[in-house]
Amino acid sequence: MSSYSAPLKDMKFLLKDVIGLAEVGSLPGCEDATPDTADAILEEAAKFSSEVLDPLNVVGDREGPSYDAATSSVKTSPGFKEAYRQFCENGWNGLGFEPEWGGQGLPKLVSTPVLEMLKSANLAFSLCPMLTQGAIEALVLRGSEQLKTTYLRKMVAGTWTGTMNLTEPQAGSDLSLVRTRAERHTDAENGAHYRLFGQKIFITWGEHDVAENIIHLVLARTPDAPEGVKGISLFVVPKFLPKADGTPGRRNDVRAGSIEHKLGIHGSPTAVMLYGDKGEGAVGFVVGEENRGLEYMFIMMNAARFVVGLEGVALAERAFQRAVHYSSERLQGRDLVEGRTVPIIRHPDIRRMLMLMKSQAEATRALAYDVAAAMDIARLHPDETRRKQAQGYVDLMIPVVKGWSTEAGLQVASLGVQVHGGMGFIEETGAAQHLRDARITTIYEGTTGIQANDLLGRKLLRDGGGAMRAWLESLKPLDSALAGAKNPDVVALRGPLAGGVQALIDALKYFVATAKQDPRATYAGAVPFLMLTGHVAGGAMLARSALVAERKLGESGADADFLKAKIATARFFAEHILTQSGGLRDAIVGGASTIMAIADDKLIAV
Amino acid sequence: MSSYSAPLKDMKFLLKDVIGLAEVGSLPGCEDATPDTADAILEEAAKFSSEVLDPLNVVGDREGPSYDAATSSVKTSPGFKEAYRQFCENGWNGLGFEPEWGGQGLPKLVSTPVLEMLKSANLAFSLCPMLTQGAIEALVLRGSEQLKTTYLRKMVAGTWTGTMNLTEPQAGSDLSLVRTRAERHTDAENGAHYRLFGQKIFITWGEHDVAENIIHLVLARTPDAPEGVKGISLFVVPKFLPKADGTPGRRNDVRAGSIEHKLGIHGSPTAVMLYGDKGEGAVGFVVGEENRGLEYMFIMMNAARFVVGLEGVALAERAFQRAVHYSSERLQGRDLVEGRTVPIIRHPDIRRMLMLMKSQAEATRALAYDVAAAMDIARLHPDETRRKQAQGYVDLMIPVVKGWSTEAGLQVASLGVQVHGGMGFIEETGAAQHLRDARITTIYEGTTGIQANDLLGRKLLRDGGGAMRAWLESLKPLDSALAGAKNPDVVALRGPLAGGVQALIDALKYFVATAKQDPRATYAGAVPFLMLTGHVAGGAMLARSALVAERKLGESGADADFLKAKIATARFFAEHILTQSGGLRDAIVGGASTIMAIADDKLIAV
Repeated sequence: MSSYSAPLKDMKFLLKDVIGLAEVGSLPGCEDATPDTADAILEEAAKFSSEVLDPLNVVGDREGPSYDAATSSVKTSPGFKEAYRQFCENGWNGLGFEPEWGGQGLPKLVSTPVLEMLKSANLAFSLCPMLTQGAIEALVLRGSEQLKTTYLRKMVAGTWTGTMNLTEPQAGSDLSLVRTRAERHTDAENGAHYRLFGQKIFITWGEHDVAENIIHLVLARTPDAPEGVKGISLFVVPKFLPKADGTPGRRNDVRAGSIEHKLGIHGSPTAVMLYGDKGEGAVGFVVGEENRGLEYMFIMMNAARFVVGLEGVALAERAFQRAVHYSSERLQGRDLVEGRTVPIIRHPDIRRMLMLMKSQAEATRALAYDVAAAMDIARLHPDETRRKQAQGYVDLMIPVVKGWSTEAGLQVASLGVQVHGGMGFIEETGAAQHLRDARITTIYEGTTGIQANDLLGRKLLRDGGGAMRAWLESLKPLDSALAGAKNPDVVALRGPLAGGVQALIDALKYFVATAKQDPRATYAGAVPFLMLTGHVAGGAMLARSALVAERKLGESGADADFLKAKIATARFFAEHILTQSGGLRDAIVGGASTIMAIADDKLIAV
Repeated sequence: MSSYSAPLKDMKFLLKDVIGLAEVGSLPGCEDATPDTADAILEEAAKFSSEVLDPLNVVGDREGPSYDAATSSVKTSPGFKEAYRQFCENGWNGLGFEPEWGGQGLPKLVSTPVLEMLKSANLAFSLCPMLTQGAIEALVLRGSEQLKTTYLRKMVAGTWTGTMNLTEPQAGSDLSLVRTRAERHTDAENGAHYRLFGQKIFITWGEHDVAENIIHLVLARTPDAPEGVKGISLFVVPKFLPKADGTPGRRNDVRAGSIEHKLGIHGSPTAVMLYGDKGEGAVGFVVGEENRGLEYMFIMMNAARFVVGLEGVALAERAFQRAVHYSSERLQGRDLVEGRTVPIIRHPDIRRMLMLMKSQAEATRALAYDVAAAMDIARLHPDETRRKQAQGYVDLMIPVVKGWSTEAGLQVASLGVQVHGGMGFIEETGAAQHLRDARITTIYEGTTGIQANDLLGRKLLRDGGGAMRAWLESLKPLDSALAGAKNPDVVALRGPLAGGVQALIDALKYFVATAKQDPRATYAGAVPFLMLTGHVAGGAMLARSALVAERKLGESGADADFLKAKIATARFFAEHILTQSGGLRDAIVGGASTIMAIADDKLIAV
């Protein structure tokens, strides 16, 4: 069996040597994020992830939550309740939140590796705090003082968990179709409030037994709201209405109607939530102003999409580790040169697959951490220009972190099964779970197609490509540095990276030329463009890492094995992934004419 | 819900217009394979697949076989037994076998579409006759007259099923490690025979209740056999020893020890088989000569690999149809041009995914059928040169049909989930089953890596690349024909196809140059080379189809929608799949240096 070990070396290398914990640690309010503190936190998180969460991962998969129709209650997998108690007691839930609400106020650059570890060890478990954190952010950003006072400390502590209720059967990617209604109401118990009626589906951790209360954030329409996206409001709907003393009071008119039978993340209960099912309506309180719910969701969406992107990194790492463990032990076939029976890790194609896994785990990680640091800078840097510039990079890269990293994670998890051969198809081996779990990450919180449309439409065409140009500009010094490198493996990165940049430039020209007269032809290239952007961004991060590694190899006491592996991994990525750039460009600029050529009802010819 | 409809138009178009049923039908012994007969058979098979097998597909998935430890017996999924009875009664099991044994003697070009339909409708079910057919081929090819007389009629009728017992816990891809032993024995009941002792794993349909007897073909070693691959023999081991009157007699000392809990193909019982578990040994009869078992397996392997390749086609088609059905009905988001809410099939990225699915289903199908026709020619053509040439093409393309088509099927099944969005992750939708089922096809009957090594090592380097050169030569007239086409969509195929051919030539030069001095660097490119070969072969088949379609569009009464779709699909494939050729070439010729650069125990750095 393979157990998870957090890739602490790579995490620390990225934080300290590549991305700049020093700069982030010097931001106002981040003074506690010293290298020593960061090390200590990462090491504790690694321990908790490996010792507590990792062993429960398979338990959650095999013995998922059960739903009791009589009480509308959900019993989570064995061990999850106790693990969640420890998780909260250790303070992991509040890592990134303001001390004002009981959090530790750590920058994203430090909390991000912690999140990655939780997700590598137990994705299904990690979704509970992830959703809570999303709900907290909504309240911090737009909640009234009363909402903040009532809910935030409990939620930051994790005593109460949160959910996000967006999807309805007819409203998935298109939230303009939301129908859940919120009627204004006033009574002695709750004062002015709303009563909600409707059904929400795919509600992650919508019902469970690990916390004493569940705070649902719900998108709904007031009776007089305008149609479409401008008529949707955001409400807080607690499972138990808080009493004056702040403890959970009477049960609200909201309940889980069932839980889903899913391909993966079995340990995470995905509920159908029924609001106002008893007829009285679920008591809810508006967040911010009416009709601005979708706008608030979009503010939070960056954070949520970033965190799902991290799931791609996390599953890639976990699947990679399992594949290395198996292939190191499985004796099969003879070495091509030495002739003796060897572990399959010695066979070139197995190694190629392991390197595809390793290089993509590291490339997606490096990009995610770089964006995490930019989020810190965008929020806290004293210089407005620096803040804006960082925010531009964040906005540009969020759909890439989400879309590209999860596509990579999915591919890597599938390769993980392949490395195991027939054993990979047997559930007891564990490799298949990662693939099943990974399959949702390219879908929820906006599919890859939605991310690509966001990148192309909002982040590129709408702002005239400024952020993209700024980023491409920032790659020029990298190109020069690669040209000046001495290590031939580092120099070798230059060609494939330049090829990727050129492909991006060609694609940009195409988009600008077609966007107005043929939007369908433009958006047909959206996903290939997102993947291309990811390859170049990931390749650039690995190139930066390789340059640092080259420099550090010259220092005394350098960890030569690790640093040389960094360079080899960057080169592998350049030669096996970045080399796809030309093909992606060709598909974008030359592949649109056939997309809509066949009539809808002629696609299947039977 | 989506139900399966056999793509009869595409199948008939390929048989009659592209590949040449006329030539195959004129081969000696194939006189019955007239266009009308072929049509009738395909239509009947389509009906049986849709009406009987397709509805049971989800049943098998949800309610898989159960194992009873007390009796070592396996109860198959509800409905499977009755469906199998109908399958046999309709004569589907013997379609391709000699009339001498009760078969219908149809050429592969006609039986292949039938097999595809069975597999699209119910992959798990189809594995039972597939394994039987493999066992039949072994007996036909190398069985003694007595073995043939005892077993063949029953197996061709399907009354008795067959299995292939190769794998042991320590012997998967590497069969030289087989340990099951076969001791010579003589007694009054069985005459001279063998007693087998050992454990076999991953035995598809190793135990079940759909037929009255199960005939296991088993690889084992005699006590004095040489070590390694040259000491393995092939034995027939029936579950019930046939009595003199040909009916099943006493139970042999072989039983199922358990069945596996798998990611997919739940309806197919995968057994651990225990030979000689009672101590007396399983009575077995040698097939052909001792120590030549692996050689016999290799003869059959082409057929088995071809059929698994067809599973890639079949699942791609099934996943595609389901995705089209869903995306035609699911209203979500607004049309980019018209602005109104539309079914998602109108969104460019959904269409791009559907076209990736459609074009790969059609490209893999076209190649598989072309190879099927070549198998018929190689076996039956009166002219030896023609037979040899056809066999060269078959040998070259078998690993491509197996490896490339199943990789395509896996990707397509995953895209099928993606098209469904969140619903794709819910098991009840059915899209996830295709992904889970598809995940084994790149593994069993030789992983994609094994296929690629076969292509590169046996089919290319060992024979000096003759078959590959002959095939590339055969593409030159195709290039000229494309150049002479009038339809601009057909002309557009030429560039990407030529680019693919050039990439293959570059790769060949690289392999010839490195094979001797650096086999690891050579074999690091094996899988990218297999994929490149598949893209070019599939692209060439679609180009041939497009040329035929262009010609037929000029005929009166032409099915214009179908023919235009053919051309658009070929162009899509050229512009979205064949454009990957340059990247694959670059990974092959420039990507080997890092494959083994990191020490085994330094791959994970924690």
